[in-house]
Amino acid sequence: MAELRKRNVPEAAATTAAATKDEDQKEDVESEDDAKLDVDELAKTLPQGTDHTPELLSSALSGLPDRWKNWVIRGIFTFLMIGTFCLIIYGGPLALMATVLIVQVKCFEEIINIGYAVYRIHGLPWFRSLSWYFLITSNYFFYGENLMDYFAVVINRMEYLRFLVTYHRFVSFCLYIIGFVWFVLSLVKKYYMKQFSLFAWTHVALLIVVTQSYLIIQNIFEGLIWFIVPVSMIVINDVMAYVFGFFFGRTPLIKLSPKKTWEGFIGGGFSTVGLGLLMSYAMCQYRYFVCPIEYNEALGRMSMDCEPSYLFKPQEYTLPTFLQFMPSIFKWKNTITMYPFMLHSLSMSIFSSVIGPFGGFFASGFKRAFKIKDFGDVIPGHGGIMDRFDCQYLMATFVNVYITSFIHTASPQKLLQQVFNLKPEQQLQLFQTLQDSLQNRGLLNAS
Amino acid sequence: MAELRKRNVPEAAATTAAATKDEDQKEDVESEDDAKLDVDELAKTLPQGTDHTPELLSSALSGLPDRWKNWVIRGIFTFLMIGTFCLIIYGGPLALMATVLIVQVKCFEEIINIGYAVYRIHGLPWFRSLSWYFLITSNYFFYGENLMDYFAVVINRMEYLRFLVTYHRFVSFCLYIIGFVWFVLSLVKKYYMKQFSLFAWTHVALLIVVTQSYLIIQNIFEGLIWFIVPVSMIVINDVMAYVFGFFFGRTPLIKLSPKKTWEGFIGGGFSTVGLGLLMSYAMCQYRYFVCPIEYNEALGRMSMDCEPSYLFKPQEYTLPTFLQFMPSIFKWKNTITMYPFMLHSLSMSIFSSVIGPFGGFFASGFKRAFKIKDFGDVIPGHGGIMDRFDCQYLMATFVNVYITSFIHTASPQKLLQQVFNLKPEQQLQLFQTLQDSLQNRGLLNAS
Repeated sequence: MAELRKRNVPEAAATTAAATKDEDQKEDVESEDDAKLDVDELAKTLPQGTDHTPELLSSALSGLPDRWKNWVIRGIFTFLMIGTFCLIIYGGPLALMATVLIVQVKCFEEIINIGYAVYRIHGLPWFRSLSWYFLITSNYFFYGENLMDYFAVVINRMEYLRFLVTYHRFVSFCLYIIGFVWFVLSLVKKYYMKQFSLFAWTHVALLIVVTQSYLIIQNIFEGLIWFIVPVSMIVINDVMAYVFGFFFGRTPLIKLSPKKTWEGFIGGGFSTVGLGLLMSYAMCQYRYFVCPIEYNEALGRMSMDCEPSYLFKPQEYTLPTFLQFMPSIFKWKNTITMYPFMLHSLSMSIFSSVIGPFGGFFASGFKRAFKIKDFGDVIPGHGGIMDRFDCQYLMATFVNVYITSFIHTASPQKLLQQVFNLKPEQQLQLFQTLQDSLQNRGLLNAS
Repeated sequence: MAELRKRNVPEAAATTAAATKDEDQKEDVESEDDAKLDVDELAKTLPQGTDHTPELLSSALSGLPDRWKNWVIRGIFTFLMIGTFCLIIYGGPLALMATVLIVQVKCFEEIINIGYAVYRIHGLPWFRSLSWYFLITSNYFFYGENLMDYFAVVINRMEYLRFLVTYHRFVSFCLYIIGFVWFVLSLVKKYYMKQFSLFAWTHVALLIVVTQSYLIIQNIFEGLIWFIVPVSMIVINDVMAYVFGFFFGRTPLIKLSPKKTWEGFIGGGFSTVGLGLLMSYAMCQYRYFVCPIEYNEALGRMSMDCEPSYLFKPQEYTLPTFLQFMPSIFKWKNTITMYPFMLHSLSMSIFSSVIGPFGGFFASGFKRAFKIKDFGDVIPGHGGIMDRFDCQYLMATFVNVYITSFIHTASPQKLLQQVFNLKPEQQLQLFQTLQDSLQNRGLLNAS
C-alpha cells in the first residue's frame, strides 16, 4: 500500500542511518496483550520477508550503503513489475486470467502459511492437503461459473463434458462436501481447537482471495479497460502518495500506519484523479481496451472486436450550473465533450484514493497483529505478493459492483444467450408471450 | 443432531445413575494441547447451556429423579417445537420467512457470544456493534437479492424506493465498506490480534448463518414442499437414529461422538428414506405445498395457487431391469405410478441420512474444541438454537443446489420477467433477434 511516509519531521534526519527496510515494523515492538497466542515467540517461526536479494544484484550493489541499496532494489523491481504487467496485457485476456490465477494461488499460500505458523500445526495429518483441496474446489466453482457463459457453446459440443456445464453447481457442491467430510474425519482429539481455527482461517482466505479474483476475471471480461484502469489507479495512488508524503508529509494520518500523512493522502488522491482521467481518455480510443471479450464462433477463439458502446464514444455534456461562470470568463463553450467512461473513471479514482488506502491499513494491521513484516519474500524489496495486492482486491470488488449497478443493467445479449439455452418449445413459448405483451403495449404492429 | 447413543454396552448400566444431561461432555475432559488459548479456564466464562428449566415445569417434576426429569422436559419441548413448526407453516410463507430470520439472528448471537468468550474481549470499543452491523448489512444484501424478484413490481411503484432496487448491490457494498472502514478505525494497538480474530470469526459466522438462511428462503419460494420435506427429514433422521441407537446400538460409529452407533446411523437412514417418501406422497396432493410463492398483482398479495408442475402429477415409470423379477413373482404390473417429486425426495433423504450427520459431528467437534456443552440455553432440554439447526443449514444448501441443478434449469418465466425489465427498445431488439433465430431454425413460420 501507499507509503506516504512522514519524513520532514525533525527526528527523521537522526534516524536515517539506522533506518533500513525494517522501518515498517519498528514502531510496535511493545508487547501486546496477546498472552494467549504468544505472538512474540511466534514471530520467530513466521515468514519475515527476509531481504531475499538476487545474488547478481547483491554483488553489483555491494558498494552502496544498505539504505540506498534497498531503494535501488525496490525501484528496479517496481519497474520490472510494471513492465511485466504491460507484457501480460499485450498477451491478451487469457494471459491476464492465468496471471490472476497465479497471483491468487500465491496470495492464498502466503495467508495459509501464516495460519500454519500461528497455530503451529506441523505434524497434523491432512491439513495442508485440505487447504489446497478447498482452494481447488472453490476455484473450480467460481471459474466455472465465470467461464461457463463464454465457453458453454464449445463445451456443449463435447458430449462427455456436457454434464459439467449442466450440473456445474451440483458437481462443485459435491466436491466441497467431500472436503467437509474429510475435515470432520481428520479431526484428532488433541487438536480440535487448532483444526477448527485453521478451518476458519482457510475459509476466510478463500473469501478474500478466491471470490475477489473471480470478480477480477469478470471485470476483465467486461473489457480490458475495466481491469487496467483500476489496477493502475491503485499503483498511481501508492506511488504518488509516497512521493507527496516524502516531500510535504507533516501531519500524521492514522495511528495504525505512523508513517502515512494527510499530505500524502491528499496529494495522492488528486494525482490519482488527474492521471486516472488522462489514462482513461487515452485508452477509450482503442477497441482492444474497450471491447468486452467474447467467444467468436466464426473465428473459433476469443475476440475483442466490437462496435464500442456509447460509454466510449465522445458525448457533449452541459457544464453543471456552479461551473458555468468559467465559460463566461474564458469565453469557452457552455458544453464539454468527453467520453462518458471518464465520469466513471472519476468515481473509480475517488474510491481508490479515499477507501483504497483502508485496504492497506487493514493489511498492515493484520501484519502487526501477527508480528510479521511482510506476507512473504517473493519480490525483492517489496515482500510478498499479498503485500502488493492487498488494495487491489478491495478495488476489484468495487469495480465489479459498480459495473453491475451502473453499467450493466441487464444486457439483452446475455439474456438472449440464456433464452437460447432453453428447450426449443420453451423458446417458442417465451417468444409468443413477448410478442403478445409488445403488441398489447403498442410497441409492435399486430400484423 | 442425532443422538444415536450406544447404550447396550455393558458399562452403560453402571453409569446410568450419574448420567445426567452432562453426559454429552464427559468423554473429553482430558486436557487438550491447546495451552495457548487456555480452553479449560475458558470453559468457566463460556455459556454452558445451564439446565434452564421453566419454574412451573421444574416444580411439577420435582418428584422425578433427575435423569427422567430431563427426559420429560426434552420430550415436552420436542413436541412443543414440532407444534410451533406446524403452526408457522399454517401461517404461510411470510411467517416462515420471519421465523428463518429470527432463528438466524439467534444462531449468529450464539456463535458470536462464543467468540467473545474465547477471545475475552469485553471492554473493547465498538466490537459488539460492529458484529451486529455486519449481520444487518449482509442480511440487507441477501434478503434484498432474494425478495427483489418478488417485490420489484411493488417497490418500483414507490418512486423514492426505486433506487434501492436499481442500485441494490451498490448500496449493500457501500454499507459493507462503512463497516470495513469502521473496523480499521476501531483497531486499538493492544488488541490487534484479538480484533482480527473476531473479525474473522464474525465473517465465518455470517458465512454459515446468513448465506445459508438466504438459501433457505430461496427454497421456501420454490414451494413450501422444498422446505418442509428436507427440514422434516433431518428431524426424522435425528429421532429415528436415536431410537435405533437406543434399542440396537452396539458398534461405535465415530470417535468424535462416542455415543453414536452404526446401528443408529443405518436404522435412521432407512427410516428417513421410508418416512420421507410417505411424507412427500402426502404433500404432493396439496397445491398449498407444491406451488411456488409468487406475488399476485391482481390480489395484491403473495399467492400460492398454480397449475402444479409435472413434478407433482402422477407419472408412470417402468421398473428398472434389476427389479423386474418382482412383477413376475408377484404378478404386478411392470410399471409403477408415482409423483416424480418422490424420486427427488429419495435423493434428499439419502443426503440427509448419509451426509447430514456430519453437520452434527462438525458442530459437536466445534463444541468440544471450545469446551462448551451447548451453543446456548434457549430451549430447555435441548440447549441453544444452533444445537437444533446445525444440520439444517447443510441440508438447505444441498436442496438449493439440487433445485438449481436438476429442477430449475432456467425457467422461461424468470427470463421473461428479466426481459420485461429491459428498456422497450431493447425488448423489441431482443424480440426481433429471437424471431430471426426461430425462423432460421424452422421453428417458426416466416409468414
